Amino acid sequence: MTTTSFDFTPLLPAGLPPAAARWTGRPKYDFTGGNNDPDALPLDGLIAAADAVLRREGRTLATYGLNSGPQGYRALREFLAAKLGRDAGMRCSADDILITSGSLQGLDLVNHTLLARGDTVLIEEDCYQGSINRLLRLGVTPLGIPLDRGGMRVDALEAALAALQAKGVRPKYIYTIPTVQNPTATVMPLERRKALLQLAADYGVPVFEDDCYADLTWSGERPPALHALSDRGNVIYIGSFSKTIAPALRVGYLVAPWPVMSRMLAIKTDAGSGALEQMVLAEYCAAHFTKHVPLLRKALRAKLVTLMESLKEQFGAAAEFDDPQGGIFLWVKLPDGVDALKLFPLAQAAGVAINPGPEWSVNKAHAQSRLRLCFANLSHEEISQGVAKLAEVCRKAFGVPA
Amino acid sequence: MTTTSFDFTPLLPAGLPPAAARWTGRPKYDFTGGNNDPDALPLDGLIAAADAVLRREGRTLATYGLNSGPQGYRALREFLAAKLGRDAGMRCSADDILITSGSLQGLDLVNHTLLARGDTVLIEEDCYQGSINRLLRLGVTPLGIPLDRGGMRVDALEAALAALQAKGVRPKYIYTIPTVQNPTATVMPLERRKALLQLAADYGVPVFEDDCYADLTWSGERPPALHALSDRGNVIYIGSFSKTIAPALRVGYLVAPWPVMSRMLAIKTDAGSGALEQMVLAEYCAAHFTKHVPLLRKALRAKLVTLMESLKEQFGAAAEFDDPQGGIFLWVKLPDGVDALKLFPLAQAAGVAINPGPEWSVNKAHAQSRLRLCFANLSHEEISQGVAKLAEVCRKAFGVPA
Repeated sequence: MTTTSFDFTPLLPAGLPPAAARWTGRPKYDFTGGNNDPDALPLDGLIAAADAVLRREGRTLATYGLNSGPQGYRALREFLAAKLGRDAGMRCSADDILITSGSLQGLDLVNHTLLARGDTVLIEEDCYQGSINRLLRLGVTPLGIPLDRGGMRVDALEAALAALQAKGVRPKYIYTIPTVQNPTATVMPLERRKALLQLAADYGVPVFEDDCYADLTWSGERPPALHALSDRGNVIYIGSFSKTIAPALRVGYLVAPWPVMSRMLAIKTDAGSGALEQMVLAEYCAAHFTKHVPLLRKALRAKLVTLMESLKEQFGAAAEFDDPQGGIFLWVKLPDGVDALKLFPLAQAAGVAINPGPEWSVNKAHAQSRLRLCFANLSHEEISQGVAKLAEVCRKAFGVPA
Repeated sequence: MTTTSFDFTPLLPAGLPPAAARWTGRPKYDFTGGNNDPDALPLDGLIAAADAVLRREGRTLATYGLNSGPQGYRALREFLAAKLGRDAGMRCSADDILITSGSLQGLDLVNHTLLARGDTVLIEEDCYQGSINRLLRLGVTPLGIPLDRGGMRVDALEAALAALQAKGVRPKYIYTIPTVQNPTATVMPLERRKALLQLAADYGVPVFEDDCYADLTWSGERPPALHALSDRGNVIYIGSFSKTIAPALRVGYLVAPWPVMSRMLAIKTDAGSGALEQMVLAEYCAAHFTKHVPLLRKALRAKLVTLMESLKEQFGAAAEFDDPQGGIFLWVKLPDGVDALKLFPLAQAAGVAINPGPEWSVNKAHAQSRLRLCFANLSHEEISQGVAKLAEVCRKAFGVPA
């Protein structure tokens, strides 16, 4: 074991986040994170794909970038160009796509290319924690726009844009998850997409569209991406294989006009994203993606039903939620007396991990009694048991459910 | 195709690097980068490993971090703890190791944890381009320490430390590649390692040891790592599988005391490094690493001999170099009249890519007529042909070789 006598503390720069704690394993009932359904993982297909692609072109692993250049494995970008055209109505070619190490690297590349300390961006009020945290760490102000059942409210967006303009502030982008929003799971209707794009054009603000969950609507239907609906080259788009294939692979993608893509490429100094994963995904997805995803949706929908039924059974009217249109999480409102940040450690101690609402919102008061519950990774039995445990903890601490 | 009418330029923050150029393919004779020998890639072993590990535990891909937590796949960390003990004399356990997306992510994590704009670090004068560029982009001054055939000169290091101390400057770290230095391929002898560590201790400066090439000494022998020789917990160590297995995999590792590791983990916000690569490497390496590496060394040594013979044949006395003790590159001195930065585009136009010396050194005058030639990726025939082409270009432009 390394001794730890040297004191690094005086060398650390200002503004570092607090030290991480030692990892102590996953809780038994883990309703957090974007983990997926292990039984729905297309394992046999991935194994066959790995074998086929490695036998055919495995020796290119000896070369950075697999002879495909810095934008990533060409076959995967070609699959994506076709997939994004078919599913999201986008017109893009392999040359417009950058493969990233998860969509999180996509977030970082966009942020580091466009943002400086003191900037303002517009985001959905309830929003992916990783996006909020990234902005705060960069010293950027994320201004939250309220949501309704159609996603980001464009009336509120218009008011915010006008107010910023009156103050002489040009926000750097409008960040939205329009299709299966995280955490509310709303899907923005077509007309609102058009209205959002009109506002973006009117105010000269680019749109940053995060489409990571868009393949997971229960119906399989989805409106065209914002990227597809704009002919102005003002939409930057990111997506991921984490939700459709497997999160541990860490493969995402970014679609952007070359003037900004070329600036992002210049700061992607990682000598490429993992090649094996790109190769296996390209090989698997070209043949099987469209057959696999409906099976996954069905498995996820069934787990959601279990979660909603368990909540009704255990919490009754104390747990309010909409039936989501897709995704892997449920955004739950508990009675006002429940403080989700206080519930978190109590639940953790009982083996139940949740995402407390205030960590997934820039409106802490609005989110105080809300939770995000991910249901993909646990079995049906674990979902029921975990919800029962959570109700027990909640009852003891807050008197609800009664 | 995306239109590009929206003008992102006014939104870009100050200090971004210039836009990347469109990738146009690799040159025919590519002597750049850390690409490896495709024929020495253990492809059959990797294919078998992928099959075995996926069949056994592939469903963990549905979970971020493979149930191993944020430090990376446990089986790979266990292989590494044993390997680093056996080969480098290090005493570390799986808990001291962080798997990274290539050693480049390791560089970024160390830099972002320890450095702030205006800081000073000590590095070897001729040094890996990626390390120099990272420091410059962060606004950090890399102070170059001259090398001799034993690597970083400790007399010069002592003088630099004393001069900085006199100015009240405490450098943030001493960065060194002591075992097969990049680009000089020197190996620092044991006694010098001890002297370097004594200076580091005397001046209270941590050591950042980059050991990416250390497995590739021709003899298979190497001195203990600096990390192994210090009992003060003041050495941060990085390594990689890029040079021993395959660069496109993007798997590196970092060994550090917990007080600084815990700060690095807090800024590793990528939700883990690629899992498939970690699994395949762990499975393959546990059984085959020690048998594979000697075969790779032999193949690389043979290519180096071809390169050195080609240089002698084509350049005669005009190309000076030491016979390296290992690695995948040769650091070549051409006559003073040759400007490597001018040679670079001329060679490129003739299908020959080189790393010009000034990009691999903080002493531009010293490196002006030097080149780094990587020999692992090209075939023996291509090496000979490429060197002949390079000599032709050089003769036309600079009159050497005569």
